[in-house]
Amino acid sequence: MCELLGMSANVPTDIVFSFTGLMQRGGSTGPHRDGWGIGFYEGRGLRLFQDPSASYESEVAKLVQRYPIKSEVVIGHIRQANVGRVCLANTHPFVREMWGRSWCFAHNGQLADFAPELGFYQPIGDTDSEAAFCDLLNRLRAEFSCAVEVEQMLPTLVQACAAYRRKGVFNCLLSNGDWLFSFCSSKLAHITRRAPFGPAQLTDVDVQVDFQSETTPNDIVTVLATAPLTNNESWNLYQPGEWRLWRAGECIAQGLAD
Amino acid sequence: MCELLGMSANVPTDIVFSFTGLMQRGGSTGPHRDGWGIGFYEGRGLRLFQDPSASYESEVAKLVQRYPIKSEVVIGHIRQANVGRVCLANTHPFVREMWGRSWCFAHNGQLADFAPELGFYQPIGDTDSEAAFCDLLNRLRAEFSCAVEVEQMLPTLVQACAAYRRKGVFNCLLSNGDWLFSFCSSKLAHITRRAPFGPAQLTDVDVQVDFQSETTPNDIVTVLATAPLTNNESWNLYQPGEWRLWRAGECIAQGLAD
Repeated sequence: MCELLGMSANVPTDIVFSFTGLMQRGGSTGPHRDGWGIGFYEGRGLRLFQDPSASYESEVAKLVQRYPIKSEVVIGHIRQANVGRVCLANTHPFVREMWGRSWCFAHNGQLADFAPELGFYQPIGDTDSEAAFCDLLNRLRAEFSCAVEVEQMLPTLVQACAAYRRKGVFNCLLSNGDWLFSFCSSKLAHITRRAPFGPAQLTDVDVQVDFQSETTPNDIVTVLATAPLTNNESWNLYQPGEWRLWRAGECIAQGLAD
Repeated sequence: MCELLGMSANVPTDIVFSFTGLMQRGGSTGPHRDGWGIGFYEGRGLRLFQDPSASYESEVAKLVQRYPIKSEVVIGHIRQANVGRVCLANTHPFVREMWGRSWCFAHNGQLADFAPELGFYQPIGDTDSEAAFCDLLNRLRAEFSCAVEVEQMLPTLVQACAAYRRKGVFNCLLSNGDWLFSFCSSKLAHITRRAPFGPAQLTDVDVQVDFQSETTPNDIVTVLATAPLTNNESWNLYQPGEWRLWRAGECIAQGLAD
């Protein structure tokens, strides 16, 4: 299995604190040694860092921890391989351009007997995750000939995720830089931080942060993770089948798939 | 204008030496302060580093210089903006998936009155370069319904580049990870290094390398750059309209466009 990390915020926010916690699980406090990746949206651009080596000892991960990149939408992932060998092409998150935007996707879980029809988007590596991402985009393009509001796409998105879930485990994060869609098949947690901000303590490493000193009173920052990253805050656990759509730190739609 | 950097090699080779020379031109010995990027193929995967800030002082560029990434195909670029503002979405190289491979593209020059029909691939930013890249891929997809050998694609590639060139200046590098296609509209140089290897001295900064100690006798490494990067070797200059296709360090096809 793998672990996911997501962020949605109403102001460009750095995710160094949460990323530092997650990276420990990539070979130190967790077994996810088979690569890691993180994508930061900057406007319509996407800054992607990936490494097929363990995040705990990755030079690139050290750079990301040292160098606070501010973003409103982030998708990260650490991998413990099940389908597909350990290599860069199999490293999440995956990215495709659709309708002039960068779409970014990460998946935790595995799918059995999953061989979707090849469409316009085709996997580069050989993971079930990238195959599902391509299939999801192919479904959206088949349904809509041009960009539409995310609310219009939601039924297609949720239906596709529910179908993948019936083939195994499908926790995922998806974004086009504007919104962040999350689907929970088995395990996903979220926390929304807003004023008054307090201190937080990572579970996986002895690091504390006082968000009060790093934020303004109007900041709203939601962090998503497979398992809570801090041990002194109250995280909310998704139910199996629950999906949530986030924008600017707020949950703007949610539901429960069949 | 911008500067291009390319590499094609028959063994995974690091490009730290050439990259170090090029990065000086991003704010120190050259005026290309408006961002830089470099893509390294690793198997079918592509490792992309980009930054809209000047390469000369970029933290990410320092990492790439410190951390030798070995690759058989590399495409790099430093930018001096003319069309499109300075931001991540306008930073080369650009990447799209086609036929299950990562295609990577960088352009030096500018195109006047360039407004290609929107096709499947659409630009994310607002540069003429990315618009040309999308148009090029749309032309290839219109011509071929699935992946074909690069030799079969060459007439379409060359014809498209020749058409862009008629709208301005169009020096470019394009790869799918297997081969490296290069087109010269006004300025491009190449050098192929093979045994016996000797020392090389960068033009832009006081750095020397002795390739003899870093290579094996069978290595073949071709480096492409807008302008020669070393001052003690003999670089070959492309003629205007000349294109070359490289694979594993060797030129496997070449010609002169109308």
